[in-house]
Amino acid sequence: MSTTGPVHEVLAALPLVDHHCHGIVTADLDRHGFESLLTESEPWPGISPFDTPVGVSVRRHCAPLLDLPRHAPVDAYLARRAELGGDEVNRRLLAAAGTRAFCVDTGYTPHAITTPRELAETADATAYEVVRLEVIAEAVAAEGVEPDAYAAEFRRAAEEAVRRPGVVAVKSVAAYRTGFDLDPARPSDAQVTAAAGQWLADGGRLVDPVLVRHLLWTAVDLGLPLQLHTGFGDDDIRLHRVDPARLTDWLHLTKGTIPVLLLHCWPYQRQAAFLAAVFEQVYLDVGLTLHHVGPARSRAVLSEALEITPFRKLLYSSDAYGLAEFYALGALAFRRGLGELLQARVDADDLSLPDALRIAAWAAGDNARRLYGLPLPQQPVPAPEPRPHRD
Amino acid sequence: MSTTGPVHEVLAALPLVDHHCHGIVTADLDRHGFESLLTESEPWPGISPFDTPVGVSVRRHCAPLLDLPRHAPVDAYLARRAELGGDEVNRRLLAAAGTRAFCVDTGYTPHAITTPRELAETADATAYEVVRLEVIAEAVAAEGVEPDAYAAEFRRAAEEAVRRPGVVAVKSVAAYRTGFDLDPARPSDAQVTAAAGQWLADGGRLVDPVLVRHLLWTAVDLGLPLQLHTGFGDDDIRLHRVDPARLTDWLHLTKGTIPVLLLHCWPYQRQAAFLAAVFEQVYLDVGLTLHHVGPARSRAVLSEALEITPFRKLLYSSDAYGLAEFYALGALAFRRGLGELLQARVDADDLSLPDALRIAAWAAGDNARRLYGLPLPQQPVPAPEPRPHRD
Amino acid sequence: MSTTGPVHEVLAALPLVDHHCHGIVTADLDRHGFESLLTESEPWPGISPFDTPVGVSVRRHCAPLLDLPRHAPVDAYLARRAELGGDEVNRRLLAAAGTRAFCVDTGYTPHAITTPRELAETADATAYEVVRLEVIAEAVAAEGVEPDAYAAEFRRAAEEAVRRPGVVAVKSVAAYRTGFDLDPARPSDAQVTAAAGQWLADGGRLVDPVLVRHLLWTAVDLGLPLQLHTGFGDDDIRLHRVDPARLTDWLHLTKGTIPVLLLHCWPYQRQAAFLAAVFEQVYLDVGLTLHHVGPARSRAVLSEALEITPFRKLLYSSDAYGLAEFYALGALAFRRGLGELLQARVDADDLSLPDALRIAAWAAGDNARRLYGLPLPQQPVPAPEPRPHRD
Repeated sequence: MSTTGPVHEVLAALPLVDHHCHGIVTADLDRHGFESLLTESEPWPGISPFDTPVGVSVRRHCAPLLDLPRHAPVDAYLARRAELGGDEVNRRLLAAAGTRAFCVDTGYTPHAITTPRELAETADATAYEVVRLEVIAEAVAAEGVEPDAYAAEFRRAAEEAVRRPGVVAVKSVAAYRTGFDLDPARPSDAQVTAAAGQWLADGGRLVDPVLVRHLLWTAVDLGLPLQLHTGFGDDDIRLHRVDPARLTDWLHLTKGTIPVLLLHCWPYQRQAAFLAAVFEQVYLDVGLTLHHVGPARSRAVLSEALEITPFRKLLYSSDAYGLAEFYALGALAFRRGLGELLQARVDADDLSLPDALRIAAWAAGDNARRLYGLPLPQQPVPAPEPRPHRD
Repeated sequence: MSTTGPVHEVLAALPLVDHHCHGIVTADLDRHGFESLLTESEPWPGISPFDTPVGVSVRRHCAPLLDLPRHAPVDAYLARRAELGGDEVNRRLLAAAGTRAFCVDTGYTPHAITTPRELAETADATAYEVVRLEVIAEAVAAEGVEPDAYAAEFRRAAEEAVRRPGVVAVKSVAAYRTGFDLDPARPSDAQVTAAAGQWLADGGRLVDPVLVRHLLWTAVDLGLPLQLHTGFGDDDIRLHRVDPARLTDWLHLTKGTIPVLLLHCWPYQRQAAFLAAVFEQVYLDVGLTLHHVGPARSRAVLSEALEITPFRKLLYSSDAYGLAEFYALGALAFRRGLGELLQARVDADDLSLPDALRIAAWAAGDNARRLYGLPLPQQPVPAPEPRPHRD
Repeated sequence: MSTTGPVHEVLAALPLVDHHCHGIVTADLDRHGFESLLTESEPWPGISPFDTPVGVSVRRHCAPLLDLPRHAPVDAYLARRAELGGDEVNRRLLAAAGTRAFCVDTGYTPHAITTPRELAETADATAYEVVRLEVIAEAVAAEGVEPDAYAAEFRRAAEEAVRRPGVVAVKSVAAYRTGFDLDPARPSDAQVTAAAGQWLADGGRLVDPVLVRHLLWTAVDLGLPLQLHTGFGDDDIRLHRVDPARLTDWLHLTKGTIPVLLLHCWPYQRQAAFLAAVFEQVYLDVGLTLHHVGPARSRAVLSEALEITPFRKLLYSSDAYGLAEFYALGALAFRRGLGELLQARVDADDLSLPDALRIAAWAAGDNARRLYGLPLPQQPVPAPEPRPHRD
């Protein structure tokens, strides 16, 4: 079954770069609080959020990290979690993840969560920051701006945000706002002013298609790698509109500019792989997906994601939010899934062991380090750009 | 290979609830008649319908139930079938399915087929009824109605139909009529009247998009679970228009109302799983698909369907129509596919055996019983709602 | 693992019919030349085209054919390739493919490549020709024609082209030009004249949607099998527009006319399988995909492609272009993937060995021979239709 062997041994010891994640909820979590964070929906009457692939994985793989037997009952798990306290639980689970560097999207904070520095300290790791552009744009609107000054003010604010120490990338959730069936062209100044006028009068989230594509083009101007949510998310996603293949025209227009990181991708991991194979600037991960499908299916999903993806184009992310469990499970599912995939090819002599170990090291961290300019492991962290987060 | 073990043993003995199926053709079947029912198309010159995955499965898995060797030749199979006679063949194949309760869609009858009661008697089981709403609407139109009375009359007729004893759900084939790129909003009375005027003047099937979505909203008003054809079907389907993700806007608008059962789903089982994971009201099966792909691929399809689906959201159906073989093969492919999936996870210690057995029992019948209010196995059937079918 | 057994032994010895391929670049290839042909994109700085699934397969499976150890380093591979010279390399790699007949698309020639006859001679095989219709149409435009004479002149030129000895099919790359969201109806003469007038005035490639569907309908009139690019290709493809399911309306209108061969299909192999299962005229392959995903994933892709595909509907193609490696790898990935799929079913007793061998022989060549009217292996080649290529 290729579940043991040298690839697994090496992968188990490799420090990870988690190139896209969030923070851990700092409040103590009661049962409802925990269950609300466990799935991509609110809990439903009569259906336990633990009766899901991710719930099963928590009981199987996280319980032993809290000194419980494998497959511990839900009540026992939650009781032990409360007994140990959030700090100890978080410390144990993050240590199990074995992540050395986190790139933290700081723009999603419906709960009070750890700062990047707090996350890094809990994990004995380094944290970098990913700036969510919709947050910048909406702050500009909230502070008040004339429509014809919106574009310049958004750009100024974004430039200021990415100059903060430790910022290594920007992110957009255009997937949630409009999906990807956008006119790919850079909008004209007049179009942006007109759309901004409407938005500033109406208020609300940034969902205007002209302003969403203006945001994507502003990302191009900023020059940092752009992380794009694609595929799987909560019920605010229209899944059929967030197939990353719908970005093809925009990727043609932005060739030679910024790297584009396709996040999550599932169930469009093959479409993402196609883009990574034919566009120099495209990279992908299957974060979020990995801890939801769990180690029992991570090899299957990674196998599709890697069918044609160049081996320097796959990155690791957990996309963990809220629960420390997700950092541990994402890392476990990644190490086991990629380990099984590569070990099976080595066992069948389709891949040499040195090649397999090289691919493992690339995906576990080297591809992210190369792309974001992060320091190599064991090396002292250089200053000033990129710098560890000190907010 | 996880093809033996306690999960398989338990699953083999579990009585199934087949929450969506049709009836068996009652006429004696000659070769052309049998072959016409074997695939989702008419037979083609020079290509035997037996040279398909489902044809291979019939010869492998049904032949022994008719006292023939495994992989019996086609001629021998059809000769033995004729020799035994339809009643005996049906009795044997239905017994092999091990289904205790059928929810029968009575709205698709291009051939003379068994009534739910006849099906139940042949299988020594209980039958419930699923009312196909397009049939009700088209009967209202055929009987003659004024355009401005269509909405009320359709609703009255539907309410009358679902009050029949044993009715547990309604069904729509909107997938075949328009696909799912519909305006999700409930249409206004004026819109419905105008569309009905046009339809009643033109005649034909109900394919008007306003009337199709009016039908879906009428289902909401009826309050029963709604079964929706999605994905795989015959050549009347436009597969790219029946991705269930295209229902997302409508699912938002109907939150908190009726359960929605996504039928078949293939090749969109991952999209269906996403909806089941984020919408409380959404459930799914991979019926029809299972007997067509056969036991050799049912684990693969179920694995994708279950990647993120909450374990209380997967139901079993055969979607069998016409041939008793399909009831046997659907059940076999389900038991084997789910058994292999769960047993492999138990063998890898990703899932505990008690959890695996619980999930098996839920999918085999408990989820359907809970959703449709069916009696538990071994219990006497309660009256009056839902009642066994006595038409 | 089902990697050995009688199905593998038989498949290893079966001569293949490669029903869709191109030619081999005749110029000597330096490193950049080789790498440019290795992937579906130009090489990128800092990312070796060998660090891909297909690059790994070249080093693993082609190196021994050039007397190198398995997994030879890139430099050693390219040096040995240069040492042996293109003719010897091509001869060895084509011999390894074991292909007896090639159907060569002669309409894609960005490099100087072998003629069908040269390819056939190198491989000690027979070559047939596939006429690419866009090339014919663009030649008609380039030679100058009045808009109202375009339709007749294109048809005349196409008829002349397909009368050439050895022509067995036509091909369209409508996928690249417009995608498949076309009005399915045959355009009127007036529509074609108007569109031709615009095109002839503007120049450039044939991308007008009226003229693309006119081209598809001209293929119907020609009466030969039509090969259609679907799915995977280079960055000129909009992947979401080339799902073959989008051809459904056109397939309804062309029932009873010409066979339609869906090429490549990935990642839409299930959608293609659906069409092959419900439309008599539809056939499919997973060419191009096979050598890119390699033997480690060819079973997975073929398994999806065959989930419901009638066994007489799957064909083999390499879609090899440029590098002789692709003929060898396509054949290897096909033999191994199909062998593992069938052997596993035989081992699980889901399929009888005689049935497995029959299916293998059909897919390896008999289906293509039947469809294109090619002579059986070992038989002398008949004249005049279809004839081996003698251009």
